Amino acid sequence: MKRILILGGGFGGVYAALHLEKRLRRELDAGLVEVSLINRDNYIVFQPMLPEVISGSIGLVDTITPIRRLCPRTNLYTRTIETIDLDRRRVVAAAGFGSQQLSLEYDHLVIALGNVTSFAGQTGLAEHALPFKYLGDALVLRNHAIHVLEEADIERDPEMRRNLLTFVVAGGGFSGVEAVAELNDFVRAAARSFRHIDPTEIRVVLLHSGKLILPELPPSLAAFAQDLLMKRGVELRLEARLGGATADGALLASGERIPTRTLVSTVPSGPNPLVAALPCKMDRGRLVTTPHLELPEHPDVWAVGDCALIVDARTGEPSPPTAQHATREARCVAENIAARLEGSALRPFAFKALGKMGSLGHRSAVAEVFGVKVSGFLAWWLWRTIYLMKLPGLDRKIRVAVDWTLDLLLPPDIVQLRTDRSIGLRREHYEPGEIICEEGGHGDWLYIVVDGEVEVAKQVPGHGSVPLRRLGPGDCFGEIALLGDHVRTATARSLTAVNLLAVDRDAFQALFSTLPPLRDFVSRLIEERMAPSRAADAAAGSARLMETTSPRG
Amino acid sequence: MKRILILGGGFGGVYAALHLEKRLRRELDAGLVEVSLINRDNYIVFQPMLPEVISGSIGLVDTITPIRRLCPRTNLYTRTIETIDLDRRRVVAAAGFGSQQLSLEYDHLVIALGNVTSFAGQTGLAEHALPFKYLGDALVLRNHAIHVLEEADIERDPEMRRNLLTFVVAGGGFSGVEAVAELNDFVRAAARSFRHIDPTEIRVVLLHSGKLILPELPPSLAAFAQDLLMKRGVELRLEARLGGATADGALLASGERIPTRTLVSTVPSGPNPLVAALPCKMDRGRLVTTPHLELPEHPDVWAVGDCALIVDARTGEPSPPTAQHATREARCVAENIAARLEGSALRPFAFKALGKMGSLGHRSAVAEVFGVKVSGFLAWWLWRTIYLMKLPGLDRKIRVAVDWTLDLLLPPDIVQLRTDRSIGLRREHYEPGEIICEEGGHGDWLYIVVDGEVEVAKQVPGHGSVPLRRLGPGDCFGEIALLGDHVRTATARSLTAVNLLAVDRDAFQALFSTLPPLRDFVSRLIEERMAPSRAADAAAGSARLMETTSPRG
Repeated sequence: MKRILILGGGFGGVYAALHLEKRLRRELDAGLVEVSLINRDNYIVFQPMLPEVISGSIGLVDTITPIRRLCPRTNLYTRTIETIDLDRRRVVAAAGFGSQQLSLEYDHLVIALGNVTSFAGQTGLAEHALPFKYLGDALVLRNHAIHVLEEADIERDPEMRRNLLTFVVAGGGFSGVEAVAELNDFVRAAARSFRHIDPTEIRVVLLHSGKLILPELPPSLAAFAQDLLMKRGVELRLEARLGGATADGALLASGERIPTRTLVSTVPSGPNPLVAALPCKMDRGRLVTTPHLELPEHPDVWAVGDCALIVDARTGEPSPPTAQHATREARCVAENIAARLEGSALRPFAFKALGKMGSLGHRSAVAEVFGVKVSGFLAWWLWRTIYLMKLPGLDRKIRVAVDWTLDLLLPPDIVQLRTDRSIGLRREHYEPGEIICEEGGHGDWLYIVVDGEVEVAKQVPGHGSVPLRRLGPGDCFGEIALLGDHVRTATARSLTAVNLLAVDRDAFQALFSTLPPLRDFVSRLIEERMAPSRAADAAAGSARLMETTSPRG
Repeated sequence: MKRILILGGGFGGVYAALHLEKRLRRELDAGLVEVSLINRDNYIVFQPMLPEVISGSIGLVDTITPIRRLCPRTNLYTRTIETIDLDRRRVVAAAGFGSQQLSLEYDHLVIALGNVTSFAGQTGLAEHALPFKYLGDALVLRNHAIHVLEEADIERDPEMRRNLLTFVVAGGGFSGVEAVAELNDFVRAAARSFRHIDPTEIRVVLLHSGKLILPELPPSLAAFAQDLLMKRGVELRLEARLGGATADGALLASGERIPTRTLVSTVPSGPNPLVAALPCKMDRGRLVTTPHLELPEHPDVWAVGDCALIVDARTGEPSPPTAQHATREARCVAENIAARLEGSALRPFAFKALGKMGSLGHRSAVAEVFGVKVSGFLAWWLWRTIYLMKLPGLDRKIRVAVDWTLDLLLPPDIVQLRTDRSIGLRREHYEPGEIICEEGGHGDWLYIVVDGEVEVAKQVPGHGSVPLRRLGPGDCFGEIALLGDHVRTATARSLTAVNLLAVDRDAFQALFSTLPPLRDFVSRLIEERMAPSRAADAAAGSARLMETTSPRG
């Protein structure tokens, strides 16, 4: 029996399984061939419809299709892949409920692992920017947008309110433009249900590094899209590049800071670490393939989709990383594997894209189909029709068609669906001179300095802010507020760029009451700090700069 | 201006706001009255439809309605309430994005805080049982059910597979019966999409402490429900009480253990801690009210719903904690507050329930309406019709009606929607003699002993399992597997009942690399342990019982 193993459940992986099931139907039924697929989730995400999850115009789960339904003859392993061993022809996946890893051997391997969102090397983005790639990301963004509207509705400080009501999307390609269009429509429509939000205070900003958004499209369509977005209230910042982020601001490469609590970054993606670790020929993080989609040094190992560099046999150009191409590559790979099994000739990959389309929200879109440019309502109608046809699975087609019909009739949904309230730990980034926590404020977090320097200061009547101590890597602060229902006893401010680890009340109590070295450490810390803090209150003026007394590593 | 403040967004709170808006429309428009409501979520959950979220026959968000849409003239504060100060007539809510708490003063206060799920005092339930009260619970249960099916499909160990395919629901009241009915329908229908699951291995168990389920209903209806559930494959365990839980089993009070990875407990609920902390007259955790729903010692403070003990003026009996009663109490309280503002007479609360209904899944139900008993399809049709009418909000009515129509036509959805993958910390409970982690297995968790005793042992060729050390509160184990890609070097087993704190790889790396006392502690620990473990390998036989060498607190 020949075992075909597919890694990844995106368009490349799932369509490879689908075409293999069709092409090798008899062999599968006779037990001569086995097709397996490993993917972290049990569904495929239909990316083009992801932006509509933001506004809720498509039901949460209707943009995704269960892989089991699409490929009923494929063995699906819903696990995380840990290692790929090309020499031993074996793939190991993480343990599930038990403690045993899963080890799968193969005769043919199809690598369709795509790429991953990577904010590495960009200051503060991993901590504070919202990615936009997976279904979970769209759901998080939607809930976050509702959350800031909820808060803005009851916020009395005008500066804070404008901060809450500013939404920034970085990246003017298809994905950024579609996200900003849906976000803008949704926020402006939803705001009508909030009694105290002034719609003129809402600001939606699109950052794009080039002179014209949608570089994939002809300039006339891009210009149309720009005009339309501006007409709908989106602020376009062209030739502006995102440089970093903090909890309450987007930092541009120019040094400018846009105060916001909602920064969506669609730009950065890097190679999947599993692919990057393979001992294969790579080109800018992508696996180099033969024209038949096989790896040159590894016969019977194939690669498709965004993780592969595939040169089109007709044009000699590398294929772009789109769903259209991934599905065609998947068909080609399925045919070539079948040909190899039968001993017949392989065919090289060649495909001319049918067109490109981008939705602009609220019944408008831009499209170039078979070389014809279309924009506005007609393009939107085309967009919906074509994508509905392309959406895998008949039941999903019906559900989305119904969603769209209801969406024309009903107001947008504003329920904030928080499924998980326990956070535990999070990382934060601050630029120099920012306030981390403020005296008298309320705080449920203990902070540990990972790197950088933090100054802790206290208001002393008649003497203003008196610095108490400086903290460096390995030091903690904020512990006093966690020990009872105390307010913050001092203000902490970043002196340099600072990275922090924040531990919430529950995690703090679980860890620090259980682990003796931590318990000792915190009780010593508090003893030391309560004393000088009382002293400072009494001295009331001797503005000493006290070095930290906490133990350093 | 009179400020009316409502605490809680269940049926009691939201319908109080709704009726106040109707009753005081002119005063609200003239700015003479202000109605505010504080609730953690911005929606009200329609509890009766919650079980249908398990099977996905209703869309995830369609059982909930945004409070803003229902009560457009009410100020909604989506915050967690921290303190209620009846003397100063003030309520304080937690801080939002900023660090400032929210302090609200009132002239009239309506307490509608319901009750909370509480597993306190029940061994292992807080750690391993799934509650079933909030929308998040239903979503978690659904995803968990799909997850165990995914794992069962690829599990080769038959015992483990049966463990994964056993589903236990504790509590034979309305909520438990509806949950088990939906869970049973869903699991059996969904299993058809899994290639390797044998439907005869699926076991769905309902635990009930009495002799007949549904004690709220007449015995003949309860008996009908029992027969129907059994016919559909639910295993009824009557006069069986849940005593505790571990990661892989439900423990009955009789001492019996049912191996399962899915234990749903609908039974335990306790008073809301905010209500329990009030200096008011209480009866079994509920606020005692006057017949006009006011607190006897606190004029202008009112209580409705499950948190209040309300004696019916007509029957002299306490009102049961149902949505029907809460909505009627809400209307009564709204009228009485309006009467108080106008100086007219208050009216006492009296209401006769119209009926009781429970869905049994798949087109069957039981109902008693105006004293008439109905069961089967007709009851199911009644159930759907009445609840559709009662569902708040026209747009929700339409969405649910559409959901139900699609549900008749389309197969059940099996996508596992995990929105959050970062766990960080979790608590675990083990009964004596259970294996916590196994030598050679793969593990991504560090364990800290909270209480109890754990034995660590190692297989030595020719000598079987050799105990290495005993661990007690404050000791750690499993750290070696976290430091690289190592397998577990020893087996840990509970000697007594053990409570643990498990720290995952990410949280471990974040905390332990950042905090010097922890870093020192772990590196010392590993040094100490690697040495004796090597010694044990070498000695290969001197079966010593080594006392732990890790520092205790």
